[in-house]
Formats: sequence, structure tokens, C-alpha cells
Amino acid sequence: MTQKIRIGKIATMLAMLDDKERSHFEDAFNDVDICLGKVGTMNIQKVISSVETAVKRLNLIEDGIYRETHALYHTIVEALEGITRGQLTLGETMRTVGLRFAVVRGKPYTNPQEGEWIAVAFYGTIGAPIKGLEHEAIGLGINHI
Amino acid sequence: MTQKIRIGKIATMLAMLDDKERSHFEDAFNDVDICLGKVGTMNIQKVISSVETAVKRLNLIEDGIYRETHALYHTIVEALEGITRGQLTLGETMRTVGLRFAVVRGKPYTNPQEGEWIAVAFYGTIGAPIKGLEHEAIGLGINHI
Amino acid sequence: MTQKIRIGKIATMLAMLDDKERSHFEDAFNDVDICLGKVGTMNIQKVISSVETAVKRLNLIEDGIYRETHALYHTIVEALEGITRGQLTLGETMRTVGLRFAVVRGKPYTNPQEGEWIAVAFYGTIGAPIKGLEHEAIGLGINHI
Amino acid sequence: MTQKIRIGKIATMLAMLDDKERSHFEDAFNDVDICLGKVGTMNIQKVISSVETAVKRLNLIEDGIYRETHALYHTIVEALEGITRGQLTLGETMRTVGLRFAVVRGKPYTNPQEGEWIAVAFYGTIGAPIKGLEHEAIGLGINHI
Amino acid sequence: MTQKIRIGKIATMLAMLDDKERSHFEDAFNDVDICLGKVGTMNIQKVISSVETAVKRLNLIEDGIYRETHALYHTIVEALEGITRGQLTLGETMRTVGLRFAVVRGKPYTNPQEGEWIAVAFYGTIGAPIKGLEHEAIGLGINHI
Amino acid sequence: MTQKIRIGKIATMLAMLDDKERSHFEDAFNDVDICLGKVGTMNIQKVISSVETAVKRLNLIEDGIYRETHALYHTIVEALEGITRGQLTLGETMRTVGLRFAVVRGKPYTNPQEGEWIAVAFYGTIGAPIKGLEHEAIGLGINHI
Repeated sequence: MTQKIRIGKIATMLAMLDDKERSHFEDAFNDVDICLGKVGTMNIQKVISSVETAVKRLNLIEDGIYRETHALYHTIVEALEGITRGQLTLGETMRTVGLRFAVVRGKPYTNPQEGEWIAVAFYGTIGAPIKGLEHEAIGLGINHI
Repeated sequence: MTQKIRIGKIATMLAMLDDKERSHFEDAFNDVDICLGKVGTMNIQKVISSVETAVKRLNLIEDGIYRETHALYHTIVEALEGITRGQLTLGETMRTVGLRFAVVRGKPYTNPQEGEWIAVAFYGTIGAPIKGLEHEAIGLGINHI
Repeated sequence: MTQKIRIGKIATMLAMLDDKERSHFEDAFNDVDICLGKVGTMNIQKVISSVETAVKRLNLIEDGIYRETHALYHTIVEALEGITRGQLTLGETMRTVGLRFAVVRGKPYTNPQEGEWIAVAFYGTIGAPIKGLEHEAIGLGINHI
Repeated sequence: MTQKIRIGKIATMLAMLDDKERSHFEDAFNDVDICLGKVGTMNIQKVISSVETAVKRLNLIEDGIYRETHALYHTIVEALEGITRGQLTLGETMRTVGLRFAVVRGKPYTNPQEGEWIAVAFYGTIGAPIKGLEHEAIGLGINHI
Repeated sequence: MTQKIRIGKIATMLAMLDDKERSHFEDAFNDVDICLGKVGTMNIQKVISSVETAVKRLNLIEDGIYRETHALYHTIVEALEGITRGQLTLGETMRTVGLRFAVVRGKPYTNPQEGEWIAVAFYGTIGAPIKGLEHEAIGLGINHI
Repeated sequence: MTQKIRIGKIATMLAMLDDKERSHFEDAFNDVDICLGKVGTMNIQKVISSVETAVKRLNLIEDGIYRETHALYHTIVEALEGITRGQLTLGETMRTVGLRFAVVRGKPYTNPQEGEWIAVAFYGTIGAPIKGLEHEAIGLGINHI
């Protein structure tokens, strides 16, 4: 891989690993901007707004600039395709999710003209709206910003 | 999470981490059956057949039994949704992938009646058919077997 | 076809035929477990929960076991793809359905290792939310259980 | 149902039942125009062209008229959604089908202004490209013509 | 193009151009029936019903005839695919639209047997539910009627 | 609309209008960079590569920079959703297209921080692989670059 920083791998590890497990990778986390959060819901809209709110609170993207909101939005939706695998719905198709998410902003490519990119990773469970009737799911989106 | 063994997390780490990074998690890998591989292609069919061939060579599923082939097939396709994010095509939409994959078979739930499940994880790059014009992608599918 | 029992055909006939028409096929219905029901709604979630409730009431699947709920859920969703043909929505895209459904559990294959499979069939109408402005629709999903 | 003739049910029965089974429903088949055929392939294009060729050979639609070709085409594609359940691909996603099809043209509604409609039904198997590793599938499309 | 009247181009210009811009094309608008309207919403259902209501108010289609409602409905949904580009949702995926629409009914083909066809065009903006955070979108559906 | 330059409308008009019709809008075309072309094919890949080649020949995007290739690629695919309306396939589902395309690069927003955006528009016909059996189609994609 020609990328010096793998923002997708970093985002996935941050969403998937616990504090102790993450400690083995701390060096990788220093070169990027990071935002972490959690959301449990049957509502796709709430997943999207939870990520957007968390990201804006940390100023990981510039709030009033559509360009950055647009880049983030498409990255979230791409990551959700990995979670929902085929139909971008939760409650309507009787599913609920419990997800941790990580948003990573950085410069993955050695060529400085490639500029900044953003990665959104989700990890957690998807299943019936009954505790325990669920399995794991993961999703990753990446976009230029 | 009510699962004692997270086969999705194990598969994702196996597909994503290098040997040294994996060494921190070795205990987790002992309770499951594992198959690893790689595939680089513009052809979805070749991704699917690479995983199926690798899995059958290691006897991770029973070859002549449709039940197991059917479970594996749907798990691979679900994992590919995370890689392709919207349209299950590669070459036809001018994309190529370079992927590592991990297939994990085990008993994730504490209740023994839940039996065996299978996880397929992909990690690597997707992009234009020109070296370096690519970004990371990840996909995870999980099914009962 | 190498299957001794065609659970998909049985489910489709049970969802589509009236009592008198079914009488010609009664022998085929003896080798499987069967659950029948009806649902009229603009809500995909209600279609799914109607089938799940009917199936659990007859103990066609084991209620607390995720393995069986997971198999049934994916079978219902696959059957709904045939009803909705492209987008898994009803009310959101201004459509309503009036459906009869049949769930069949049995051993379709001659090889005993293939074990049990489940079929879900829907038959009825889909159309505008105005009586009569509708045409027929059918859907069938099949999964190992 | 406010339809006097159920062209979808007729098409499904013709695709699904053998000669002896069909004999119980013969009266229903008299009020419509019918075309039957078979196709086994890994190629969606071949499924579509097989139906189109069979239909044109019997003059069930008018050959040079785009209006009728357009109606038939969309009906075939809708029926294929029930067969493929999510992604309109076969060989690309390592699947093969063995299908019987029936095309029915008639006047389903009591109101004569509703005119003619067309139904396309498929019934058969879908599965891995290995004999026996397959399960049943069904699909139905309906359109005004 | 073998069509004497391009109903899709007419519908797109009517949805996209302002009064002064349209004045250059007025001759083209005389050979067809036209219905114009606007809708701003996060709700796909409201987009569909706005078009249907406008069309029926002008008697562009016959109200009680399912044949015509069915043709219009599928044409609207096809046009919405161009607006939503991948998933037929708005509010659920945190998007809002401000659209102008035009419905055109006419005889595009020189062969009189091709009869009447209908075109639905949308033009406007799609974006985050915050004023200004939006970009343009267009969609066109065409069907025989 | 808060945009001073509507790059989507410009791209659509360039793809849809003939030389004489375009002459009414020439002022709008001065503030943006423009690339025009044509493609007739049953192959989605060829549509994508025709646009990419034309764009790179005019230096509308920087050739070796993945950031720009990535932005253009997703814009083309979004525009193709409007052309294919549901399944991103042509030949596999027995369809052929004859399309004109326009790519427009400019600064649509008054706020200079919004920077450059790109629009890709297609206009032409889609239909059966027989001359004349076709109807119009349009597609528009927009992305930050």
C-alpha cells in the first residue's frame, strides 16, 4: 500500500478495540485527528446525526462549510452500507444497532497534493430488537475532504 | 455484548493486522477455526471463489454439503457489501481490489444451542485500476452455519 | 431437481391457493411443518413482525434461540424482495400490501446431513393506498436453519 | 381482490406446476394468452433474451413496437428481482439458475378501460455452479401493456 | 434519435428553466400535455403524492384507472432514483429536497402504434436539513401509458 | 438557491441542448471549465472510462492525483444512477445507451471557502439493443473536488 498513514485501519481499530487493546497502537493515533462516540438506535437518521454532532463538537470539520459537511455525510453513509449490507434501513426492517464509531481526519498519502481525507468506522451489533438476538457488524467509509 | 467470543472482531483483526500486531491478540484466536488468504482482482466472482477455495482446502466447511456452502456464500456476499458500498460490482464499474481475507468459524454465544457461526472479513484497498489510486475498504459478514 | 421435498413450492402454493385448490396437493403438505397467516399494511416492519409472531406462536422456530430467529429473519427479507422488487419500502414509497403468507420448515434434501431448511412465501397484492388500484405480487425466501 | 382474472397466479402456476398438477386449473388458462419456456444459465442477459425470444415467436407481443417491448422488459426485470433477491447478477456473484418461465397476457380487471396487462413468472433453482448445491427461487413481475 | 418529440427533454427544461429561459423553447411545448409543480420535503411519500395530486387535478391522467396511476407511479419512482442516487430515502438518511417537477404526456414516436408516453422530471436541490448546505439534483423517468 | 453558479444546470444544458439552443445560455458557460463528449455502448465501464479520458485530455482534473480522480469517479457513478435507475448495469440486463455528457468544474457557492465542485451530466437514450427501441434518460452527479 502506498499510503503512509492508514486512516481506515486507525478508525476501525478505534471503533473496535478496548482501551487496553488500543494501547498497542498508540503511535499510529498521533498523526491524525480523532473523534469517538457511541449510538444505540433503530433509526438510521439518529446514527448519522450522532456522528455529525460529535464531529462538529470537536471541530473535526468546519461547521458552516457545506463542502466538509458533504464529505462527512457521504463517508458516514458508505460506512453504514457495511453495517446494513444491502438496504439502508434499521427499524423499518425490524433491526436495531448498538455501535461505537470513530472518525479520523488526516493525510494518508505521501504526496502532499493528495491533501486531507476522512474515515468513518462503525463497530458493534445489529439484530432483532431483543437483547442478545444480535451479531457483530462493521462498516468503513473513506472520502477526500 | 452477550457473546463470549467475538468472531467478527477476530476475523477483522486477522484480515487487518500484520503478524506483529496480531501477536497481542493470540489468545483470542485459539477458540476458533481460522482460514486466511489474499486476492487481487477486478472480478467479484474471483473474490468469492478465492475465499471458497481457501475455506474448502482447510476443511473449514464440509465440501459436498450445500447447507455449509450456502451459509458461507451469503456470508461472503454480505462482507462484500462493505467493500463495494452500494453496487456489488468491481470491473464493470472500473474498480479493482487488493484484499486480505479471514474466515472464522466458532461458537460465539454462551448458550450452546446457538451452535456454530461463521464470519468473513475483508480488508485492503479499492480504487481505480492504476497503482496508488485507491483507498482502504473493509467488509464483514456473519451467519449461522 | 435433486430435492425430494420442494419446500418453496409448498410454501408458494399454500400462500397462493384457496382451500379447494390446495386439496389437490395435500399429500405434499404432510412431510413439513407449516404456518399460515395474513397481513395488510403500508409498513414493512409490520409484515416482518406478523410472520415472526405467527411462527413463534406455533413453535415453528425456537423462540429464545437467535440462530433460528436469524435464519427466519433473513428468509422473510428475501421473500419481501420479490414483493417490493428493488426498494424494500412500502408506505415511504406510497405503496400498500395485502398478503397471505406461508412458512414451511422441513428437510428438502435426500442427504440427511443437509438438515432442516425454512421457506417463507408471500402472495397477494401491492399498489396505491386506494382499494382496487393494485396488482398481484409474490415473494419466496429460503434458508438453512 | 377486485380482479376477475389473476394473471400473476396463472403465470406462477404455469411456471411451477407439472402437467398433471396444472390439469386442476385448466379453466383459468383459457381466458389469457400464454407462453412457456425454460432457461439454464449464469447470465442474466440470457434469461432476459430467452423470455423475449419465446414471447416474440408466439406473437404474444408485437415485435417492432417499442411500447410492448418496453412493457415486457420491465416485467421480466421485476420478476428477476424475486429470483436474485437484492443484486441483479448471477455469474458475477457465482450463481447459476435453472428456471421455467411463463408469460401471461390478459385483461385482469373488470373495468374494460384497464385494458391488457402482462405477467412474467419464473420458478426453478438458484445456487452454486455445482449440481445439487441449489435451492428454489420464484419471481413475478406484472405491468400494463 | 428516432423520436419526433422528446418528452424527456421537454420535461427537464420545464423543471429546470425559469420563465424567461423557457421562452426560447415554447414551440416544443405545444405538442404535449404539461403539468408543473413544486415540493419541498424530507419525505419521499410527499414528493410522490405531490406529483400525483397535481397530475390528477389537471386530468393529465384518468383518476380512477389503475393502468394510468400505475404508469405514473413507476415513472415518478424512476425519476426519484436520479434525485436520491442509490437509496430511495430522504429524511431517514438525513436529507431534504426542494424540487420543481414537470410531467409531460405525449406521443414521442413517429409510429402511431407507439401511442402515448409519460415523462416526469425533477430539478432542484438535495442536502442537509440546513439552508444552503445542499447541491443540485435532477431526475427523469419515462414510461408508456 | 444560495448558489451563484448552478454547475448542475449548466452541465445538464450542455449535455441536452444542441448548438443553437445552447446559444441562449452562453453567458452562464463563461464562469466554469467545461468538457463535452459522447459515448454509445452496452458497457458501464466504457461510459466511465470515456468520461475520465475526455476530462483528463482537457486537464479538467489533475491526472496523477487520486483525490481528483476519486471525486470525478463518484460523480460519474452518481450520474449513472439517473441513467440506469436501480441497477448499475447495461449489457448484463440487455440495455444499450447512446449518451452525450458534459463535465463542469467551477465554484458554485458565494462563500469562497466552499471551493471547487464538479458536475457530470448525461443525456441521451437507453433501450433494447435494437435501433429505435429506446427512450430518453438523464443523470446528474455533483461532488466537491
